[in-house]
Parts: sequence; C-alpha cells; structure tokens
Amino acid sequence: MSVNPKLYHSPNSRSFRVLWALEEVGVPYDLELLVFPPRITKPTFLDENPLGTVPLFIDGDLRMTESAAICHYLGAKHAPGRLVPDTDAATFGTFLNYLHFGEATLTFPQAIVLRYGQFEEEGRRSPQVVADYSKWFLARARGIEAFLSRGAYAAGAVFTMADISVGYAIMLARHTGLFDQLAMPTQDYWRRLEARPAFARALSVQVMP
Amino acid sequence: MSVNPKLYHSPNSRSFRVLWALEEVGVPYDLELLVFPPRITKPTFLDENPLGTVPLFIDGDLRMTESAAICHYLGAKHAPGRLVPDTDAATFGTFLNYLHFGEATLTFPQAIVLRYGQFEEEGRRSPQVVADYSKWFLARARGIEAFLSRGAYAAGAVFTMADISVGYAIMLARHTGLFDQLAMPTQDYWRRLEARPAFARALSVQVMP
Repeated sequence: MSVNPKLYHSPNSRSFRVLWALEEVGVPYDLELLVFPPRITKPTFLDENPLGTVPLFIDGDLRMTESAAICHYLGAKHAPGRLVPDTDAATFGTFLNYLHFGEATLTFPQAIVLRYGQFEEEGRRSPQVVADYSKWFLARARGIEAFLSRGAYAAGAVFTMADISVGYAIMLARHTGLFDQLAMPTQDYWRRLEARPAFARALSVQVMP
Repeated sequence: MSVNPKLYHSPNSRSFRVLWALEEVGVPYDLELLVFPPRITKPTFLDENPLGTVPLFIDGDLRMTESAAICHYLGAKHAPGRLVPDTDAATFGTFLNYLHFGEATLTFPQAIVLRYGQFEEEGRRSPQVVADYSKWFLARARGIEAFLSRGAYAAGAVFTMADISVGYAIMLARHTGLFDQLAMPTQDYWRRLEARPAFARALSVQVMP
C-alpha cells in the first residue's frame, strides 16, 4: 500500500492547483491523469469520488475534493509559516480571503463562460450568459489589483497558497479569452507566477500519454 | 474609534454566514445593514468596498470579503480548537474541504438559479440555465449526505465553521425552491443547524428597520 498522497487530475482543470501545490511543497505523490470530464470518460472514477469531480486528493484516510482547501491543507502540513501563514500571523486573514476569492469569486464565473461559450452543443449555448459572467469576472478581478497595490503577492510580500488559488483563475482566463482584458499589474503578476519552477514542473507532469 | 470588528451585511445574503459566525463566537461587533445589492442601493459603499459585494468585514487593518474565509478567521481567532480544528487535528483537512465546498460548490450554482430565474427582468431570464444549475446543485449536494454518513456534522462529531458554510447553502435552497429535493438526512441536518441559539440570534438582528 502506497504511503504517498494521491491526486486524480485532469489537465488544466481546477486540480492543476493541487498539482502546483504539491510541486511547491516538494513531497512525493502519486498522480492519476484522467481525461476531462472523468465522470464521463472513466465511469469507474465514480467509485472513488461519487461527485465525479476533480480534484480528488487522498492522503491516508483523508479524501478531499476542493482544490483551494487542498492547497491550504498541503501548505499547513508541509510548509507551515511559509506557504500558509501561521494562524496568529498578521497576514493570516488576508491569506484566507484571497485563497477563497481565487476559487469562489474568480473561477466559477469563468466555468460558466466556458460552458455556455464552448462546451455546450450549439443549441444550448448562450451569448448572453457568456457576456454576463465575462463582465462579472472582470469586475471582480479588480480585487487582484487591490492586493497588488499593497504587495507583490495576495497575502503581502511573499508567495503563498493564496497565489495558487488566484493564479489558477488567471490561467483559466487564457482559455476564456479574458486574459488580455485584465489590468497590466495583474498580467505582470501572472508572469511572476508562471516563472516559478514548481509551476513549470506541474505543467510538465500533466502531459497525457 | 471603534475597536469592535464591523460587518456590512444584506439580509439573507452570503454575509449571513459571517453574522451567524459572530454570534457563535460571541464577540461584540458593529453591524451595518444594507439593502441588496448595496452597490446599487448605497453607491457610497463602493468607497468602502470597490467590489460592491457583501460581506465586507473589517477588523483593525484587516478587510475581508469572502464569507467562508471570514468564518475561518473568526473561529481561528476566537474559538480555536472548537469552531476551527487545530492544524494538526485529524479533522483539519475534512474541515477545510467542507468549508470551501459550502461556498464554491454549493452556493454559486444557486446564485445562478436565482439570477436567471428570479432577479433578471423577464426577457433576460433563462429556464435552461436555471434547470442546468438546479440539477448541478442537487448532484453536488450528495456531498452533504457523504459527510452525514460519517458524523452529525461536516467535519465529524462536532459543529464547526464548515457547518455554517454548508448550512448557508441549504438555507439558500429555501429561496431557490430546491430544499424539498434534498435528501432527508440533509433536511434533518438543516433542522439541527437552525435550532442553534446563535442562528436564531443572527436571524433576529438582521431585520431591517
């Protein structure tokens, strides 16, 4: 029986956050790559995760399915005080805020844009909904500029798991076509993130055979 | 200058999570009630929160806008080891997972259902999108049954801030009309949550003048 944590991952999906986080903390892990959406492409995956979603992350008895939560868990376990601030640190509240912001506020609207702009069949697409949530995303993305006016990263001067959460949302904006409409400081921030060696390693290991 | 934390809140919106959390931890706080959506009903609110969203939570120099993150912060600060498990507790990962799940997975789809089913003007409504995300929400809500098969609450045997996160999503299901389609164990779980004195206090203080 493996003692490594295991990640079920579909390339470029939300589970990329976890892959990137695993590379940042530098622990050994097992990776199973699944064609998106796995509930369709590999029905037996439903035995592992009845929700049918990625990520699925297993560490001993623990099973997690929320990408930003898994990043927090990995940082708290393997890089406390570095990739996750200590609970009594001055940056802790800000860290939590942007960890959640990256997923709950910046990612879901883009999933809707992708669904009704690209993934649904022609007759079920909705230009109105795509326009509504493109606008919604770009308005909320001003929250990135807000933290960049105070420091180089989401929680201040140093990179944390909150940057993986927000960074994935920016990465997704390449796919939704919204990246070019982000403010220049946000685009520069993204370039700092994608220059990280752990990001490059995560990209390289997610290539499907 | 007030030393109390301050919450900007619109009744029954996501900021209800924070109000409930404040009542659970039992610290004094200042409350400003705003008619939803505050960016329209009180434009000066944009000076306080450029995103125009509630909650806005201020504690000294800290400003937070993500409801589930604020619940985590309040529990870690005022009820560590009780409403938020310690980082090295066996329940910590599960706690994080459902704290995020309640917002990112269970709340956003219902916001879409409300938008295209009730809030938008007639010509901009979309029965298809309402049906898509009603189905999506009910499928993901099986994750609640999954944790209830293991314990009375999201992170196990005891109530935590993760239950406020998930609980608000169930409360919202009353407004989206989806509550009756939730499994019986989930409906029973909701009755345990709404029986909490802190929940009742939060309901009573959010009544607008």
